[in-house]
Amino acid sequence: MVGYDEAIYREVLEKAIDNIDEINAAVDGICEKGYKNLYLVGSGGTYSMASPVTYLLKTHSSIPWYWEIAAELVKAKPVSLGKDSVVITASLSGTTVETIEAAKYAQSLGAKVISLVGEDGCPLSECSDYVFENKKASNDNLVEEIYIQYFAIAARFMKNNGEFPEYDSFMGALKKMPDVLQGVREQQDAAALEFATRHKDTPFHMCVGSGNVWGETYCFAMCVLEEMQWIATKSIHAAEFFHGTIEMTDPEMSFMLFKSEDETRPLVDRVERFVRQHTDKVQVWDTRDFKLEGVEESVRPLVSPLVMSAMLERVSTHLSILRDHDLDIRRYYRVVEY
Amino acid sequence: MVGYDEAIYREVLEKAIDNIDEINAAVDGICEKGYKNLYLVGSGGTYSMASPVTYLLKTHSSIPWYWEIAAELVKAKPVSLGKDSVVITASLSGTTVETIEAAKYAQSLGAKVISLVGEDGCPLSECSDYVFENKKASNDNLVEEIYIQYFAIAARFMKNNGEFPEYDSFMGALKKMPDVLQGVREQQDAAALEFATRHKDTPFHMCVGSGNVWGETYCFAMCVLEEMQWIATKSIHAAEFFHGTIEMTDPEMSFMLFKSEDETRPLVDRVERFVRQHTDKVQVWDTRDFKLEGVEESVRPLVSPLVMSAMLERVSTHLSILRDHDLDIRRYYRVVEY
Repeated sequence: MVGYDEAIYREVLEKAIDNIDEINAAVDGICEKGYKNLYLVGSGGTYSMASPVTYLLKTHSSIPWYWEIAAELVKAKPVSLGKDSVVITASLSGTTVETIEAAKYAQSLGAKVISLVGEDGCPLSECSDYVFENKKASNDNLVEEIYIQYFAIAARFMKNNGEFPEYDSFMGALKKMPDVLQGVREQQDAAALEFATRHKDTPFHMCVGSGNVWGETYCFAMCVLEEMQWIATKSIHAAEFFHGTIEMTDPEMSFMLFKSEDETRPLVDRVERFVRQHTDKVQVWDTRDFKLEGVEESVRPLVSPLVMSAMLERVSTHLSILRDHDLDIRRYYRVVEY
Repeated sequence: MVGYDEAIYREVLEKAIDNIDEINAAVDGICEKGYKNLYLVGSGGTYSMASPVTYLLKTHSSIPWYWEIAAELVKAKPVSLGKDSVVITASLSGTTVETIEAAKYAQSLGAKVISLVGEDGCPLSECSDYVFENKKASNDNLVEEIYIQYFAIAARFMKNNGEFPEYDSFMGALKKMPDVLQGVREQQDAAALEFATRHKDTPFHMCVGSGNVWGETYCFAMCVLEEMQWIATKSIHAAEFFHGTIEMTDPEMSFMLFKSEDETRPLVDRVERFVRQHTDKVQVWDTRDFKLEGVEESVRPLVSPLVMSAMLERVSTHLSILRDHDLDIRRYYRVVEY
């Protein structure tokens, strides 16, 4: 398929899976010594990728967790972040300044820092206690491989906490992702092209999602449409939509709805029923449209963020081609000083 | 001043303050019996009003807390929400369906529910363990009176937890709010009129804030500009701005920056320095511009959300007048079924 190298994609996902044994050993070590809470920390893309992990913890675990933007964490200095905390973060380049500062700050308190990076030895590695690398990862393949490892980390903490009976099924599902996600991209390709063709000149998209694909919703709006395509967006949680943003609904408004298979799906269904009465410009991205061979039914909802990410990669690629706007062009980020 | 009744505004704020003794008794009772964590729960406006409370807890307390959208909470059923949880919520009308469902669900688990309402006896009261009413409160005055009571609740939990040495100064500051906030509205009136005059036809605003005024940023975008004026917005945290949304910066983009006096202020300063290089359409709403008579310097940053809310009320009012678009008009909310 256009836009990425299938062999590299598979290799990156396989490497994420290969890291799981080391991840387990690291988490087991932390659990043996004891810890008090988990901090999911990131910047932009990695902040939004932590979102489904917080949702997994919320819905399946009693471990206290906090979700923090790296740059705000360093300023706010949360009282509950301390020597018994575990920080989980990522930076593919390993050079994201805010994330590095957050890791350094956490380490200065005695917290343990777990980092996912492209290449060990990067600046983020130097202020991390546990580093998992994935050398071939590039921006195109970033999200799914981060999800696999983030999920593996969180799942191990949960299992060790005597909860999450779905552990084995979930890990089994993660290990199927190289085949499954390649299949998702293939199946999604035509729909993505069709959407991109229809919307290449659409100036504004309202992105609505919930639950474990809220991070994908927020990220697609900010990191793809805004950052990579310079298209204006609003991202709004489906449960919040009815409390203000609803009034923006009109026949000219383009809606992108992000549907997971988790418990919050009815929240997006409700938005869909409403907006379809008022505009024809409704695109639903639904993980349920995909056969996920080898994934047990009981854990299908848990991998929705991975499926959604694979689906949206196709949308990004076709939009960039049809708009003749490369996904790597930036006006400002790492171009000008600020 | 145009747009609200000063006597009622004062009365509503005074009533919020009068409730503090009862609030303290309720919180003291809960603390004596013991509890495990706090859930700040709301829908739209009341969800965003909980934001500065979570920031206060984050920066000054070790009490575990979670911030939840009411409708999502009911679907997601967080594992950590249980009989030892305390839910703090609000609905002026007392009829917000999602908030009522969340309170009912929490009570069904044995959690204690504290609710702020307009009038006791409303549907939300019926599924709450502790109810604080404020009969004269109307939408115009809602935010600041909710803040006073939310803050009083959280501060009491913190004090009883042996932390928050600023307790007395902070409570002293809250009690000054009727005078202080009336003064803020007066001082802000001209600037708000000037902004509204300049921007009455501006079709899109980028709203950027952080820390304890992130809730105000999110709420002004969604609940005022979108819901009450049908003007498109994006709200983005200042720490996240540089990770995607920054690329939307151009000379035509209108920026509204929301500056608190808390630790995260430099995050918004950084956005300001950047956007001023690229557009003249930059409005900074800065709580530091106001003399807050009787508020001790040490707790000034803690009342920034109240100051910001009073400032923004003026902006809403002047926008609605100059745009001849009443703040109470809705196309959909409580107008059509969905």
